[in-house]
Amino acid sequence: MTSDEEAIRALVATRMAASKTGDLETLSGLMADDVLFLVPGQEPFDKAAFLAASRGMKDLRIEGASDIEELEILGDWAFMRNRLTMTILTEGGEPTLRRTGYTLSILRKEPDGRWVLARDANLLGKQS
Amino acid sequence: MTSDEEAIRALVATRMAASKTGDLETLSGLMADDVLFLVPGQEPFDKAAFLAASRGMKDLRIEGASDIEELEILGDWAFMRNRLTMTILTEGGEPTLRRTGYTLSILRKEPDGRWVLARDANLLGKQS
Repeated sequence: MTSDEEAIRALVATRMAASKTGDLETLSGLMADDVLFLVPGQEPFDKAAFLAASRGMKDLRIEGASDIEELEILGDWAFMRNRLTMTILTEGGEPTLRRTGYTLSILRKEPDGRWVLARDANLLGKQS
Repeated sequence: MTSDEEAIRALVATRMAASKTGDLETLSGLMADDVLFLVPGQEPFDKAAFLAASRGMKDLRIEGASDIEELEILGDWAFMRNRLTMTILTEGGEPTLRRTGYTLSILRKEPDGRWVLARDANLLGKQS
C-alpha cells in the first residue's frame, strides 16, 4: 500500500469516528474549502451547509461502518467507492434509522501534502 | 479548451443523442468494459446490466438536456459533474416522468486515446 493510500484510508477512519462523536472541527479539517456534497434529489451543497446540517444532528448518536471497495490514486487526486452503513440511535441506544449504500468521492492532495475530501456523491438508501 | 475537454464534451453529447434514440451500440462504445453505475438504494451494476435495462426501455421516447457544471482533466482520468434533466414521453409525446439532478462521473482515456465512462453516480430525483 502506498503512503497516499494509507493517508486516504486514515482519513476515512477519522471521518467515521468524528461523525460518530459529532466532532465538527475534525470533520471540517478533512474537507477541502471548496468541497461539494451531492445527494439524491437536492442541489449540491457546500462545506458551510454540511457543517450547519451536522450541528443540527449533534445530539443524535450515530453508528457506522465503512468498507472501501475501490481506491484509485491519480497523482494529486484520487477517487474512491465506499460501501457505508449508517445507523441513527435513540438516546437509549435503539436504532431508529438505518441507511446502506455507496458513496463515490473525489479526493485531492493539498500543497501541504494532506489529502482532503473534494466531492462526495452519497447514494445511501433504505436498501439493507 | 483542451482536446481532452473537447473529446469529453463530445462524448456527453453523443451519449445524450444515443439515449434519446435507444442506440445501444453507440452507448456501449462510450463505456469502459469495467464501467460501474451507481444509483440510490441499489447495488452498483455493470455494463451488461445497463444494456439489458436499456433494451427494456427502447420503445420509450426519452428527451434530455445536459449541462456540464464541472470538468477536471487529471492526466488519463477525468471527473465531471453534470446537471441533467431526463423526461420519458408517451408514444403520443406526453411527458410521463421527469427527473432532474446531478451525475458525478469518472472518465478514463484508453490506450488508443478514446475517452470512456468508467464510473457514473446518478443522483437524479423528483426535484424540479
